[in-house]
This record gives sequence, structure tokens and C-alpha cells, in this order.
Amino acid sequence: MAKKPSIPKGTRDFSPAEVAKRNYIIQTIKKHFETYGFQPIETPSFENSETLMGKYGDEGDRLIFKILNSGDFISKVDDVTYSSKDSASLTPKISEKALRYDLTVPFARYVVMHQNEIDFPFKRYQIQPVWRADRPQKGRFREFYQCDADVVGANSLLQEVEFVQLYDAVFTDLGLKGAIIKINNRKILSGIAEVIGAKDLLVDFTVALDKLDKIGEEKVKTEMMEKGISEDAIAKAQPLFDMRGTASEQLEKLKTILADSEVGMLGISELEEIISTVDMVGLQSASLQLDVTLARGLNYYTGAIFEVAAPEGVKMGSIGGGGRYDDLTGIFGLKDVSGVGISFGLDRIYLVLEELNLFPDSLDSSLDVLCLNFGKKEGMAALKLVFGLRKHGLRADLYPTDTKVQKQFKYADKRGVPYVILLGEQELTNDKFVAKNMKTGDQKDYPLDSLEEFAEKVKSDF
Amino acid sequence: MAKKPSIPKGTRDFSPAEVAKRNYIIQTIKKHFETYGFQPIETPSFENSETLMGKYGDEGDRLIFKILNSGDFISKVDDVTYSSKDSASLTPKISEKALRYDLTVPFARYVVMHQNEIDFPFKRYQIQPVWRADRPQKGRFREFYQCDADVVGANSLLQEVEFVQLYDAVFTDLGLKGAIIKINNRKILSGIAEVIGAKDLLVDFTVALDKLDKIGEEKVKTEMMEKGISEDAIAKAQPLFDMRGTASEQLEKLKTILADSEVGMLGISELEEIISTVDMVGLQSASLQLDVTLARGLNYYTGAIFEVAAPEGVKMGSIGGGGRYDDLTGIFGLKDVSGVGISFGLDRIYLVLEELNLFPDSLDSSLDVLCLNFGKKEGMAALKLVFGLRKHGLRADLYPTDTKVQKQFKYADKRGVPYVILLGEQELTNDKFVAKNMKTGDQKDYPLDSLEEFAEKVKSDF
Repeated sequence: MAKKPSIPKGTRDFSPAEVAKRNYIIQTIKKHFETYGFQPIETPSFENSETLMGKYGDEGDRLIFKILNSGDFISKVDDVTYSSKDSASLTPKISEKALRYDLTVPFARYVVMHQNEIDFPFKRYQIQPVWRADRPQKGRFREFYQCDADVVGANSLLQEVEFVQLYDAVFTDLGLKGAIIKINNRKILSGIAEVIGAKDLLVDFTVALDKLDKIGEEKVKTEMMEKGISEDAIAKAQPLFDMRGTASEQLEKLKTILADSEVGMLGISELEEIISTVDMVGLQSASLQLDVTLARGLNYYTGAIFEVAAPEGVKMGSIGGGGRYDDLTGIFGLKDVSGVGISFGLDRIYLVLEELNLFPDSLDSSLDVLCLNFGKKEGMAALKLVFGLRKHGLRADLYPTDTKVQKQFKYADKRGVPYVILLGEQELTNDKFVAKNMKTGDQKDYPLDSLEEFAEKVKSDF
Repeated sequence: MAKKPSIPKGTRDFSPAEVAKRNYIIQTIKKHFETYGFQPIETPSFENSETLMGKYGDEGDRLIFKILNSGDFISKVDDVTYSSKDSASLTPKISEKALRYDLTVPFARYVVMHQNEIDFPFKRYQIQPVWRADRPQKGRFREFYQCDADVVGANSLLQEVEFVQLYDAVFTDLGLKGAIIKINNRKILSGIAEVIGAKDLLVDFTVALDKLDKIGEEKVKTEMMEKGISEDAIAKAQPLFDMRGTASEQLEKLKTILADSEVGMLGISELEEIISTVDMVGLQSASLQLDVTLARGLNYYTGAIFEVAAPEGVKMGSIGGGGRYDDLTGIFGLKDVSGVGISFGLDRIYLVLEELNLFPDSLDSSLDVLCLNFGKKEGMAALKLVFGLRKHGLRADLYPTDTKVQKQFKYADKRGVPYVILLGEQELTNDKFVAKNMKTGDQKDYPLDSLEEFAEKVKSDF
């Protein structure tokens, strides 16, 4: 007989309770995206393979889900390729489309394709799923949502300031107080590479430096030397190891280290402007912290970079990140369009809110009123009643059959309904209905023609 | 250099203006789904191939997008299959997952997998994209949204009544007056097949009957005879050709035709109950019309079937449809769960609203206020001002650079911003700002500390 059904590994079904919580986060993010002037776009779930391939490195190319061509796809493969029986050579012959891997490359593609319809500066947001053929593990899925906001065509540092404010606004609204917005600048990292005379070793240098908190100064230095960074270079970078204190204290130290690097000094002045402007405007609940060890993986960043950490005490990877990129659309032929953007990590924010018990109780109930069903005649009256309540904006339902009252109450309980309505023969004769508050157990009569009064009462309880 | 980018045929980018309109429809549908007690679920974009294959007929199987296995997929194909070089035999060896083709089969799979967590009757809605490798044409895409609501575990006809009310509520709210909800019952079609002695020819019979409006009675009869339906059978069905009049008049005629068919008479009594109950509760702007020629393609329907036509005068295929199915979850091993559901056709509803000019004007503006940028010092004050306006819930933006005022105004125009704020040196000195109404050209001064007053003014204009 029918096999027990399952879903592909790394994917998820979302129950009504989970969708309600996810939508609560998404709606909050969306609301602030919009008050900050961002406009939504949507792009197709799959793109032409050539749009995606080669944009995320070899590892990324491997993790992109490819879609098999339709019809008799094999007949289009030439005999030489076919006889090689080699997956890598066959793939482009039997697959022309692929599921999007992130929202950034499709956005760049969108900007280039629609450049003549777009009014720059273009502030867009996009909240859609992406797919990666990654090994699934805790908190990592093969299908997950990204929530991105970007501005292209504006190189003013005010954009960076606004993104810091935007993070603060969203996390404050979610009740997640104490989020830490870490900031750094790629130009500073470039400056450091210049100064220590090891441009090629920048990545090794930052990867090692990134571990300072975990493994301590000595081990970081050992790792740097193993990677081929000279003792002399490490000595020059010594002040980086002592990067404590306020942002301005740290920036002063950096000015000493990077005095000879033009790009480095530019990075410092950008950071100074961003940080002082944020200070001037003020944040509500988050804090902005300079972190010179912050590097972020993606190579297209060229200016400020951001990463958001959950409030202290919550163990969780970053819950957001982003930065400035000066030439993202260049890969599709449109040069000199500077952009900056940030992303919110929906799944991780969900876990943090769950851990800190920050989801509002109101999300638990998916129905405001359940009207019990006492039979054919009463049911008809109840149907009219429920129809009226819905017109007043209540989420209302009539139990579909006149089964045992106990069973109907049990259903009301399970759905977390705050009010149950009883409309039996007696009530019908008296043109009234009884509303039972399921929390307190109180019952109250209402005339059948005073639905508005009752609807207001239910709404006022929220 | 970089090739001009494109997107796969049959897919679409949605601009901010289009997303706003699509979201307006989706939010309206969602609101009513929720007041009618439906709860949202979400399922993965791709399912295991075995979940989808064989559920939509041969044609459906062909149109399902298959996902190529990751890694060295070819090495797992046995030599016999590989040497056959046959697409059909190779596909299951190199692809284990597929993009969902509709929301109904994934929903059935969900119900079976989660049957122990679900409180029946389970009213769920689901608004997600589906994918079909169909030949793209006007109004038909390879990626499109379905908006479905279903109830499973309740066989009361009240469900059918509620779905008619739900269609009416949504279309009324969208301003689409005069939608025609056509109803029929599969049992009546079965009854007809019985009576004319041609159970096997039911499909041919209904396909031909369906053309009555277009090609006329004689040609329909000719087609029926060509398909092998006897003259005698056609004569018996004669009253079907004269099915004019009110629903109850039509039902009376059907009672004569179907007197000897138990299933047919059951279908009639179901329809009578649904139609009379809808009459009793009343509809707001749609009408319910019996259409005995309505058949609907999907084989899993067993009771009432629905199809919604746009108001008269609008040329458009059906904008919604659905029906009762008695054993959908049976394909995954859960027997005897009756369900009924409807779907809204987002893309077609969009086209109808566009044609009738029914989208609200408020959707045209994505920004309430644009604050012009007059330089460093003024920009800082403007940043604070904009921050304050956003906290009051306005969608507000500061132009990122102090470029020419004319250019900034042009940008405001293009984004359809109703208010532009001027905060220059003089205003700053006087602790005030100037708000210009872009429609009327009126300008008004506000003190910098009376943001709330201004925010209320802007909101009251909506």
C-alpha cells in the first residue's frame, strides 16, 4: 500500500503556529523596511544557470540546485560528452536553469535588466526563499528565507547610518533588546594588508585574528606565522591585538598603525563619520561596536561591513549582516553603481525570540470565536451569526457538525479560542446568544442584533 | 564582456508597483481566509519525486520540474540504464526531488504526515508559488502563485456554503462586483452517465456539453455521436440542453432526468441544500449559479464543484475553482478523510482588477515623505527629522546627497511622494521645516518639535 510520505532532508513543513511566528518576524521587518523607504521586488525562483554559476566560488557552484531540462533532454547531449560519463561535463548539457542561491545576485541581475525603469537611488527589499544543497545541520536548511534590503546608486555614508538605525528599529520592535551591531570597513583590512606587507595573506591574517577571543593572542600569532606572515609584519600589527576600549579609542590606535596606508586611512574616516552620525541620532536598544577583526566572507564588499550578534547570553551565530559593495552590477555589465545592503537571518532570529520567550501570546490563537453547533435549525442561525462576526473583522467559525458538545469544547480548547458562543434552542427563542470566556469561564448574554458590541469586546481583549 | 542578462521563459520579475498590487490581492484573500477560521501552513518548494509523480496524470508528470541530484550524480547510474540513453529511464536515477506542481498534493501529504498533531476538522490555507514546465502563453506562467483554502475532516455541507460566502467576501472586498460563482456536483454528472448508459463516456459527454454556449446544440450532439454516445442516450439527456431558468427550476428538471439514479438524486439534494442555505444567508455582490455543464478537470472531486467567472463583460478564464473530494489523503495511506477546498487565481484576478481599474490609488505611492538634502549640517538635522517621522509610522526618506534641488524634486515626482520636506539653513535657524503638498503645491511650516501633528496630517490624507 501507500508508503509513508516524507519530505526531502533539509526542508521543513511549517505548522500554523510556526507560520504565525515566522510571519510575525517577517511583518515586523517588512514594516520597517517600508518606513525606511525600501520598495519590494520579487524575482523568479529559478534563474538561467549562467546568471548564477561562477558568482559564489567553486563551493557555491557545487551547492546550487540545478533543474533538469524538460522533455527528451538526453537526446541533446552529444556523443562525446555522453560517453565521458562525467557529471561535471554533462550538467550544462542537461540543465539550463538553477534555483537561486541568494537574493543578491538576482538583485544585481534585476538592476541591470531594468536599469531604464528604475529611479536611482533605488532602495529595494526582497523577502523570498533561497536554496542550497548544503549538508543539513542544526539551524542550517536547504530551503530558507532571506530578508534583504539594499540601496544602489547612492554612495553617501548616510546609507550606512540608516542601515544601523534600521537594524535597531527592527530588533527594538521585536523586543530583542541589546543586539550588538558590529561594524568594520574592508578598506581598513586592505590597509592592514598593505602595512604588514602581505596583501596576498590578508585572508589568512583576518581568519587568524578572528579567533582572538577563542584561542588567545599567542595561538593567533602562531597560526599567522604558520601561514607565512612574517614576525616583522605581526609585530607591526601588535596594536590590533590590544584593540579594547571605545570606538574612538580604537580608531586612534588604528590611525597610528595605518598612517602610511591611504586606503586604510580612508576606511578610518568612513567609520568615524558613520559612528559619529549614529551617535548623534542615537539608537533605541541596540549598540554599535567597532570590531576590526570582522571580515565577512563575501568578496564583493569594498567598504563598511556589518554583522549583528544576539544580545549577550544568547548563544547564536550572527542574526544579520551586510555591507557596502562598489561594483556588484559590474558582473552583468553595468559599471560604477555603488550599493550597500543588509540581511536579516529569519531562522536564527526565530530561535532567539523562542529562547528568550519574546513571541507575543496573541500569536497562539488562530481563531477569536468558535460558535458551537446544536443542530440543523440552530446551526442556520449560528451560520448567520458567524457571518456577521466575520464582517466585523473577527476570526470566527461555526463547528461543522452537531456532534457532542464536549467534543466541540475540546476542539475550541485545542485551537486556543478565547470565546465560545452557545446558540441553542432556548437562546434562539429569546433572540440572544451566550458568549463564554474560555479563560475566566464567565458567561454573558448578548442580543442577536448586537454583534458589534460583542465584536468590540473581543477586540478589546487583544 | 558580460552578456546581457535574462530570465528563464515563463518566469517574471515583479517591480515594486507590481508587488504592491499583488500583495494587495494576497492580503485581501488572506484576511478573509483568517476571518473564516483558516490557518496558514507552508510546505517545501520541492518534494520527493515519488510524492508528486503519478498524481496528475501523464501530462502532469511531464510538466513537473525535476531537480538534478547533487554531486557526482552520474556515477550512481547503472551501465544498462546509461547505455540505453533514454531520458525517461535516466530521470529517476539522476533526480530524486521535484518542484511542487500544485498545493493540493503537498497538503494531502502534510495531513498524512502530521495527522497526530492536527485537530480535525482542519481548516488550512496556503499561499505559495508552484511550478509547471508548461508552454508559456498569455496569462500562463512557469512559476505562479496558488491561493488555496481547504477543510479536511468535515463532511457537513456547511463547508460548501462557507466557501461560497468566502468567494463573495473576497471579491466584494476587492471591489469586483458581479462575480459569478458556478456550482455543480460530480454526483449529478455520474448520475447522467448512469442514466444515458455510458459511464465510460462521461468525460466525452461533459466535454461536448461544455461547448453548448460556443457551438450550439446541434454541433454538441454531433460531437457526442462521433465519440460513440448513442442517439438514444442523447435523447434521454435532451432536457440538459434546455437548462435555462433559476436553479430550482433546473433542479426540478434534473429530478426528472435522474429519477432512476441514486447517486444523481443525492447530488441534487446536496445542491438543493447548499443553494437554499446560501440563499438564506445571502451574498453581498457575487451570484451563485447552477451550471450542470461544469465538470472541472481534476479526477479527485466527488461532490460539489465550483468555478468562478469574472463579472459579465470581462473576457477572462475562471478566476477561481474548487470542490469536494472524498479521498485525497488516501493516496498517502490515510483513508476516509473528506475534504473540500477552493483556490483563487492570483494572476487572473490581477488582470481583471487592472482591466476594471479597481486597484486603489494609494498603492501607487511607496513613500509618504521625501526630505530634501541641502548639505552636511542640514542633512544631519533632516536625518533626525526623518528618524522621528519613521517612528510615527510614516514611510519617510532623506535624499542621500545634496545634489541639485531640481533633481531631488524629480525623484520625488517619480516615486509619487505626496509630501516633500524642505529643511534648509533658514528653516534650521528658525527650528521649523516646510512641508510641500506635491499634489496641490501648498506649502506649510511646522515647528521641528511637532512631528506628530505633521504625521497625523499625512496619514489623514490616505
